[in-house]
Amino acid sequence: MAQPVLLCESNAMFENIIYAGSGLGRASHLRRDAGHLAQLAGESRALLAPMWKGNSLVLTGAEPRAVLLPAAGLREAMAAAAETVFLGLMDGAPVFASDLTPLSDDEAGPSLGPGTAFVNLREIGPVLPGREAAILAQAKGLLHWHRQARFCGACGSPTFSEQGGHQRRCTQPGCSTVVFPRTDPAVIMLVIDENRHRALLGRAPRFPAGMYATLAGFVEPGETLEEAVAREVAEEAGIEVDRVIYAGSQPWPFPASLMLAFFARARSFKITRDAHELEDVRWFTRDEVLAFESKGMFLPRRDSIAFQLISRWLEQG
Amino acid sequence: MAQPVLLCESNAMFENIIYAGSGLGRASHLRRDAGHLAQLAGESRALLAPMWKGNSLVLTGAEPRAVLLPAAGLREAMAAAAETVFLGLMDGAPVFASDLTPLSDDEAGPSLGPGTAFVNLREIGPVLPGREAAILAQAKGLLHWHRQARFCGACGSPTFSEQGGHQRRCTQPGCSTVVFPRTDPAVIMLVIDENRHRALLGRAPRFPAGMYATLAGFVEPGETLEEAVAREVAEEAGIEVDRVIYAGSQPWPFPASLMLAFFARARSFKITRDAHELEDVRWFTRDEVLAFESKGMFLPRRDSIAFQLISRWLEQG
Repeated sequence: MAQPVLLCESNAMFENIIYAGSGLGRASHLRRDAGHLAQLAGESRALLAPMWKGNSLVLTGAEPRAVLLPAAGLREAMAAAAETVFLGLMDGAPVFASDLTPLSDDEAGPSLGPGTAFVNLREIGPVLPGREAAILAQAKGLLHWHRQARFCGACGSPTFSEQGGHQRRCTQPGCSTVVFPRTDPAVIMLVIDENRHRALLGRAPRFPAGMYATLAGFVEPGETLEEAVAREVAEEAGIEVDRVIYAGSQPWPFPASLMLAFFARARSFKITRDAHELEDVRWFTRDEVLAFESKGMFLPRRDSIAFQLISRWLEQG
Repeated sequence: MAQPVLLCESNAMFENIIYAGSGLGRASHLRRDAGHLAQLAGESRALLAPMWKGNSLVLTGAEPRAVLLPAAGLREAMAAAAETVFLGLMDGAPVFASDLTPLSDDEAGPSLGPGTAFVNLREIGPVLPGREAAILAQAKGLLHWHRQARFCGACGSPTFSEQGGHQRRCTQPGCSTVVFPRTDPAVIMLVIDENRHRALLGRAPRFPAGMYATLAGFVEPGETLEEAVAREVAEEAGIEVDRVIYAGSQPWPFPASLMLAFFARARSFKITRDAHELEDVRWFTRDEVLAFESKGMFLPRRDSIAFQLISRWLEQG
């Protein structure tokens, strides 16, 4: 019997997906009972991931670590929190995250523990242990969403948190719209020529000078991922692609994306750049990419799936 | 040279993805200039996909068709529309969609053309020509989002439409939050045993009696697609999976999902059902699934990616 059902042995191509792999059991069944959740938060083993003004609490130093504090010592801070959410269970211990933004500089500073600081996850994520970066990413994504969903989009009334922070409901009885944490799917793709010798890299105006990366863009309503890949490559570079192959995914909580990574095969080579989206876009050989450093050019940061797509291609040379 | 960059020849496994493949060029560069868009809407070749109370305009009858009407004849209706969006270009003709819900029953009824009716896309989608179902899906997804995003989630102020209906901006100058059309990524997966002889199918309480389908669930912040697949299968059926293989995607505008389809290999077989999510979940052999009809059981509708996943597995027997 042929075995074509699973077309690939595996296409979880990437071993090092930062912001994934928290190892936390989300225990979504526990979200249903608010009373039980409150009781869990009061347990002595309950842990809290504090955030403040969009930043995550870490132990700074040569080897930075995510900080989870015993919730028992933070009852006052949690009572003042803009929002507290239930993340899941870690080795049986319930883990929560709180947005402590209402605390003053004095309150949120030294009182949360020696050697700790609130740091932008975007800066520190790549050097944290993977599981820890993932827990902070989950907290950051969820708490960011709460700040953006305080009012009902349909009627403008305030909303309130339910299900341990995994949904919000409109307070206006005639509306009662329920909304869920938002995640925006984005496609990111390395376009390769037929012989796999050259890849298409570009730079958006917002990139740091010298950086070249894969193309990317958000999925729009009414298209498949594969259509989104082809549309973005055609729009930004005027290149047609024909084989669009899924390579992996990465949560990217800056602020709420899900990166869906693809390889795509170019059917055409003449570039027509969209000057609004890209400042430059070119075909590069492996040797040219490997010589980036000598020319003051560089690839995206190592925690990005863009880097992983490009590395995978480079390794095949 | 080995050629492992593209691990599969193709994993766009499905040929018949309903609600995708509109053939419409989204022409996103045209969204930037509101004046030019208004001019395009006034052109004699401009077309309009009308919607009313969430339903799409179709020509009913033995072979239903999507209806695009010349925008020139609908100026009054468009002026009264709750929202008008730019979908893209079809053979050079600009295509718009309007939410005509403010029109009365009398206005929205016969006046839009003989033989036409406003019908729920969910009912008629599977029997429309594919390209047409896709255009109506794009219109439905975008216009639904506008109804749900009229107020700013961050501050509660009204928002207004920009970019031809592809973003909304808060009217409160101190806030100015910009939001984009929402698409909720969901994973849907056929779990198969190691020998591919048996597959895991279940039924949610909301399913019509007798229907069994693949498991599915929304992606949460801070997880990869593969993690979401494993979590949902573990949560709903207590089954561990190890190989999670992407199979394809489908826009599902009921109301705003993007279905991301996977095969997954079971590592365990003993089912522990989540009674809250599923009314039943079982392992089925191919013969058992093929005998569904004789037992009053059936699979999901043919336009669903769930059906395609199951069919693909059945064909391998």
